[in-house]
Amino acid sequence: ALAQPFSENQLTTAQRLMDQALESDLGYEIVESLTTEVGPRLAGTEAESRARDWAIAMLKAQGFENVRNEPFPVPLWVRGVETAAITSPYPQPLAITALGGSSSTGPDGVEAEIVAFKDLASVEALPDGSLKGKIIFIDEPMTRTQDGSGYGVAVRKRRTTAYEGVRLGAVAALIRSVGTSTHRFAHTGQMQRLTEGEREGVPTAALSAPDADQLTRSLKRGQPVRVKMVLTPETLPPSESGNVIGEIVGSEKPEEIILVGAHLDSWDLGTGAVDDGAGVGIVTAAARLVAAENPKRTIRVVLFGAEEVGLVGAKAYAEQHWDDLDNHMLAAESDFGAGRIWRFETRVHESKLETAQAIGNAMRGIGVGPGPNTAYGGPDLTYVRAAGVPVVTLKQDGLDYFDLHHTPNDTFDKIDPADMAQNVAAYAAFIYLASEVDAHFRGDEE
Amino acid sequence: ALAQPFSENQLTTAQRLMDQALESDLGYEIVESLTTEVGPRLAGTEAESRARDWAIAMLKAQGFENVRNEPFPVPLWVRGVETAAITSPYPQPLAITALGGSSSTGPDGVEAEIVAFKDLASVEALPDGSLKGKIIFIDEPMTRTQDGSGYGVAVRKRRTTAYEGVRLGAVAALIRSVGTSTHRFAHTGQMQRLTEGEREGVPTAALSAPDADQLTRSLKRGQPVRVKMVLTPETLPPSESGNVIGEIVGSEKPEEIILVGAHLDSWDLGTGAVDDGAGVGIVTAAARLVAAENPKRTIRVVLFGAEEVGLVGAKAYAEQHWDDLDNHMLAAESDFGAGRIWRFETRVHESKLETAQAIGNAMRGIGVGPGPNTAYGGPDLTYVRAAGVPVVTLKQDGLDYFDLHHTPNDTFDKIDPADMAQNVAAYAAFIYLASEVDAHFRGDEE
Ligand SMILES: [Zn+2]
Ligand SMILES: [Zn+2]
Ligand SMILES: [Zn+2]
Ligand SMILES: [Zn+2]
Repeated sequence: ALAQPFSENQLTTAQRLMDQALESDLGYEIVESLTTEVGPRLAGTEAESRARDWAIAMLKAQGFENVRNEPFPVPLWVRGVETAAITSPYPQPLAITALGGSSSTGPDGVEAEIVAFKDLASVEALPDGSLKGKIIFIDEPMTRTQDGSGYGVAVRKRRTTAYEGVRLGAVAALIRSVGTSTHRFAHTGQMQRLTEGEREGVPTAALSAPDADQLTRSLKRGQPVRVKMVLTPETLPPSESGNVIGEIVGSEKPEEIILVGAHLDSWDLGTGAVDDGAGVGIVTAAARLVAAENPKRTIRVVLFGAEEVGLVGAKAYAEQHWDDLDNHMLAAESDFGAGRIWRFETRVHESKLETAQAIGNAMRGIGVGPGPNTAYGGPDLTYVRAAGVPVVTLKQDGLDYFDLHHTPNDTFDKIDPADMAQNVAAYAAFIYLASEVDAHFRGDEE
Repeated sequence: ALAQPFSENQLTTAQRLMDQALESDLGYEIVESLTTEVGPRLAGTEAESRARDWAIAMLKAQGFENVRNEPFPVPLWVRGVETAAITSPYPQPLAITALGGSSSTGPDGVEAEIVAFKDLASVEALPDGSLKGKIIFIDEPMTRTQDGSGYGVAVRKRRTTAYEGVRLGAVAALIRSVGTSTHRFAHTGQMQRLTEGEREGVPTAALSAPDADQLTRSLKRGQPVRVKMVLTPETLPPSESGNVIGEIVGSEKPEEIILVGAHLDSWDLGTGAVDDGAGVGIVTAAARLVAAENPKRTIRVVLFGAEEVGLVGAKAYAEQHWDDLDNHMLAAESDFGAGRIWRFETRVHESKLETAQAIGNAMRGIGVGPGPNTAYGGPDLTYVRAAGVPVVTLKQDGLDYFDLHHTPNDTFDKIDPADMAQNVAAYAAFIYLASEVDAHFRGDEE
């Protein structure tokens, strides 16, 4: 075995940081402030711009250095009317919400017969033009798991059903929400983005789980079921977003960066509490705690803009910092709610694995176990990870996350302050030890 | 002690009925049919009329006799647009729903400063005209209890805030929902009805609990908080409702009636599953089971119309059957959701108490304990109870009932079929034994 990479002194400091974090409400107070004083903050809107103003003021108030906004352009899509109803044989309203990027039905809506499918694969198997004039309904549920692994499977229908609708000649589409809530909330989320010259999809909305069940029960009774949908979202001219950054400049190696991120934007339906106000509170409060230890490396907090609408801020960050990515020693993003961290995952060079794992070992006392070396790092690290930046995931318990995710019910009251504090504790230990360790996590030491 | 009023044979039959009920899904299937094939059914609307057609067909299909609709006039109020938003200092939407009977703000809405109160009593204590141009906000929570006793306390603000608003010169009012849900559902419900010549209240809506919390957090930050509300409900010309009745005519004392009721109407937001589709399923399925035993007295199932909008069907029933109320031996209504029955309460003459309690004793094996002799009987029995009809309450566990009550989330998926079957079992035992027992429950045997 390798030698323990941390001194007794460093481990004692990490423990003290965790103890302090568990006694502190700072992370919780930051998410309270963001969700109350800004609320929903859809990418490219005036509300997201207010969130950046809030973030800059908050980071300055917390003593961060080099606080700035790094702007970038972003597509802008805004929600309009969204109603649906069974028109026959059992007339009644249905609870829906438009998917991000959906086209409009126009104010008069569309009314057509529903054709139901158990999953996206069944729709993809159909020949072109075979659902002319129909409304597609995909009643594919999402599996609830602690690690969120059901999401990747279920989300494919959110991304592509609208375009399948065009191929098949359908007039609109409804999907069972990508989410695990049994309550009457439809979950929104972004469709796959069109590239230049591609044809927009059919108007597409998500049904709440109870409404998907209701539609299925109606269909089981054997008569044709007709639904009317009115969706009037608009795609507006491109707007501006930005990544808000604050730093604790390193005392010994200021050019070397430990990046901790979260995303500042949210969907428009809730107030973006667990997605991702929690992450903003967690990484900011943790970095703030570590500041007092005068860390050797620079701690960079990045509050990404426009994550929800297609990782636009993540891409802008990677482009804007492309020449400096070799200086990004290690990166982590908190974007999986406010549940307790239970596992420390890494994605570092094999030769640095034990060193990286030693960081996680310091968190055993607060309930964090060892994880694999295949960490994802977080959605906003997609591009920097692809460019070779080593990442870690402080994996949260996500059993309930998709009950709230992208619904009106994602509000501050759902966050447990004790769970928030445990997250801050783990991030504080991570940030501090990553800034102190005398190693890189790539294969070659530059 | 009195002699056991039931023979061994009768008790065996009651037990067999309970066993059958526990094996049967009939109650569950009835509420599935109602909530799917009719859905929401607001009093006085075309949807409530469809519910009556459904009920008549269903009762006939289940073999009931004398199936009929007993019509009566009903006021008609329908929901319109209902939106609200904080306009300053923290602009963001709020989730609200108009209270039944609310006046309209007009399509342009009203925008004013919020003045918050912890409860209705604080508002009632204010001098006339002291909230000129303001929006009243009452953030009074409801206490969660198994027996629903928190409701009576909390509901007073739903009934009278709109009229307090007029007295105080306010332009509108918001109340924290009368309900226990922590999710983002606002709970509707009827305001106190005006009598001829009274002035209508200010436009009044309920906020979901997370939104009431959000408004309170906004106010705590110290700046004046302004809210815009748009409510466009309409009071239309009076319409028609009706009580749907089906009977099992008694084999020995056909003129003596055991009444079991539930209400057929629902609020418009959900599909009226726990309120009160469950009750419709429970009493109908139980009476259906008892039919096979050829009961001595007439079992009358009454599916009341227009309960939600002020017990209009209950009053019509009492008036239309006034001359026959002495023949109503015992009555019960199921209108507290689909939770398990845990207590048998009576409201009978002291001299008949042990006999009445013996009915409840037969249900011990399915988890039903003894209750007091102060039973309420159910909302639709208000007038017949006042006229002296003895009532019982088969008390359900209501711990979760007010999470769903009067919200969009009151849907079929919330009902547990095993709990429904336990309810049907208890009602079947009650109906059967009440029809067999050789006693009246009033003081004097006629
Ligand atoms: Zn997120
Ligand atoms: Zn998200
Ligand atoms: Zn009711
Ligand atoms: Zn009700």
